[in-house]
Amino acid sequence: MTYPQLFLKKHEDKRLRQGHLWVFSNEIDSQKSPMDGFAAGDLVCVVDHAGNALGTAYLNPNALICARLLTRKANVKIGEKFFRQRLRQALTLRERLFDQPYYRLVFGESDGLPGLVIDRYGSVLSVQITTVGMECHIELLVKLLVEFLAPEAVLLKNDTGQRELEGLNTEARLAFGVLPDRSEIVENGTRFLINVAAGQKTGWFYDHRNARARFASLVKGARVLDLFSYAGGWGIQAAVAGAAEVCCVDSSDSALTLAAASAGLNGVADKMGFVRSDVFEFLKQAREGRRHYDAIVLDPPALIKRKKDFKSGYEAYRRLNHLALQVLEADGILVSASCSHHLSRDNLHEILRSSARHIDRHLVFFGEDGQGSDHPIHPAVPETEYLKTFFCAVSPSL
Amino acid sequence: MTYPQLFLKKHEDKRLRQGHLWVFSNEIDSQKSPMDGFAAGDLVCVVDHAGNALGTAYLNPNALICARLLTRKANVKIGEKFFRQRLRQALTLRERLFDQPYYRLVFGESDGLPGLVIDRYGSVLSVQITTVGMECHIELLVKLLVEFLAPEAVLLKNDTGQRELEGLNTEARLAFGVLPDRSEIVENGTRFLINVAAGQKTGWFYDHRNARARFASLVKGARVLDLFSYAGGWGIQAAVAGAAEVCCVDSSDSALTLAAASAGLNGVADKMGFVRSDVFEFLKQAREGRRHYDAIVLDPPALIKRKKDFKSGYEAYRRLNHLALQVLEADGILVSASCSHHLSRDNLHEILRSSARHIDRHLVFFGEDGQGSDHPIHPAVPETEYLKTFFCAVSPSL
Repeated sequence: MTYPQLFLKKHEDKRLRQGHLWVFSNEIDSQKSPMDGFAAGDLVCVVDHAGNALGTAYLNPNALICARLLTRKANVKIGEKFFRQRLRQALTLRERLFDQPYYRLVFGESDGLPGLVIDRYGSVLSVQITTVGMECHIELLVKLLVEFLAPEAVLLKNDTGQRELEGLNTEARLAFGVLPDRSEIVENGTRFLINVAAGQKTGWFYDHRNARARFASLVKGARVLDLFSYAGGWGIQAAVAGAAEVCCVDSSDSALTLAAASAGLNGVADKMGFVRSDVFEFLKQAREGRRHYDAIVLDPPALIKRKKDFKSGYEAYRRLNHLALQVLEADGILVSASCSHHLSRDNLHEILRSSARHIDRHLVFFGEDGQGSDHPIHPAVPETEYLKTFFCAVSPSL
Repeated sequence: MTYPQLFLKKHEDKRLRQGHLWVFSNEIDSQKSPMDGFAAGDLVCVVDHAGNALGTAYLNPNALICARLLTRKANVKIGEKFFRQRLRQALTLRERLFDQPYYRLVFGESDGLPGLVIDRYGSVLSVQITTVGMECHIELLVKLLVEFLAPEAVLLKNDTGQRELEGLNTEARLAFGVLPDRSEIVENGTRFLINVAAGQKTGWFYDHRNARARFASLVKGARVLDLFSYAGGWGIQAAVAGAAEVCCVDSSDSALTLAAASAGLNGVADKMGFVRSDVFEFLKQAREGRRHYDAIVLDPPALIKRKKDFKSGYEAYRRLNHLALQVLEADGILVSASCSHHLSRDNLHEILRSSARHIDRHLVFFGEDGQGSDHPIHPAVPETEYLKTFFCAVSPSL
């Protein structure tokens, strides 16, 4: 098997040699390998300017990230054997980490499958594909998933705007089986109802699993505020772990309806409240009403989606953390997270430091967390790292 | 109560206003506040060049860090009430975090007590003081500790070289009670024997508590290698959690003797081996002998103690990680830590990325940890952050 060669310009092989998997369109030597000779989804052998092979990639001549390496070996057949091995390896790691079938099974580049995310919700699989190169193999992937995991349903949750960058349509469709209205998952021993088809992203955010367990261990007897609660991941686990009362705030009715149902499922409905509100508005009113909470989790959706939104997004994070600190009881706990890749760990660190100084509190980090272990980080692909969570103990100024 | 003023030069108040607690000797306006007017341990009111108060500090005119803020309030009496409040606050946070009396009770600047570290080993307290300003209050501190915690013994574990920077002697002495030959602690449910008087640092390293629990959860049936094992913190917890066999390597006979005793205490002596060796030598021999391990923890002592040792220390970390990867079984787990403040998280990240590329492995981080929650980080005092731990899943190149 020999693929057409995709030549890089001189020195443009450096990132790949360091372990990254992406080729940007301006790195291509378009004299030696003219783009109009390729179709989206074509497989190529990426080579440096001297013709040394760097691996096998799929291509999209119309995208900014125009090629992604599937393997560092040249001219590898990308077929059933390839995908079987990749899926097997991803599954082996998860089975080592988890006892129950509730996790992210494939996390794109980190699992050697660029453009593919698969979440496993028991017998329902939610698949998200963001590149043409991966879309070409969708039937094979579904076939292998059915063979490996015998699911009830495989949903292609392809309603993400990211797909537009690759010229792909954005709609969800069922690729296999029958999708139940609601699915049930278990996280850290607590049960949750989710709506895979209508939910945000792939339906559930597994990435905070460890941080939620840690938070729950700290809130016995506490008044807990769960901001941007979505389906109640943090708040319900806190209630189950013995929080005195929990208030979930979110702007989505359907998310809160699911959260309320999950609260009932775990027998903690009596100590949970659900408020449909803009979080900024809620916090301002709480501050004015001098309401305070012993433990607050602030886990907003990505407020900086693109690099150019950094300034306004940073300001939104700053205001949220500032407000949250103002409604935190003395000697309280704030868990502050950001899932924006463009807001660095140092940025969130600085927001918390400066907000605490500004309102004269003594704030220390007694813990930190990142992505759960089913969202591994590829050390040469910084784009695979996005989640930051600081656990803060906050007391009056010393 | 009014203390003499310690004037800062213009603009030198910035770090303190951002929350830091240290004043360096070159930041003092020695015209307005000549150093020869002060004795080591004196209390002062730190003021900016315009005379605005920044807080109450203790002083050492002979040290590079010549003053450390005890409080951001001016002219506060630093006596029994002050220390009572500080110790109470530190204790309250730990009691919230832990069920049993085994933890770092005070972590210096992060607990508003610069120059003081206290580790609690059940009924034995190990106290380390590194500044003259804190040394002045030692009798009061011991009195309060006895009142608060009714310990059997309070050991001043003042045999650290750091004290020389402040002109203090370096010897351990018993300040209260009777010290048993060995003490027993419990970490994550596993029992350990420690020798507080003769052990390294304060006698035990609580800072890896969370990471050790996580590691133990991953090693069922595995062949585990614990490098720089000291008293067996990682290895014995792994054995208790179901590792098939565990090899602890350390250069200290006394540490391995303690580790072997702890292994017996937990009923896992039969699957543990203890090798007294230089770790570099051990790894080279393992590589030559083609011995492999399913899970390796690499937790060296600080290899970069001072900034000027960065280059040689970095190289030592690089070699160790490189060697460890070479004796790791395919699809194995490497836990790589550094407690050197001068080796940044990014440095260790880069060492792991480049080592894996160099020997052509696919390495991802599926977890990360830092200091345990009894070692809180003060976000404005970067010197309080030192521990980095990456959990790596390592497979053949993709």
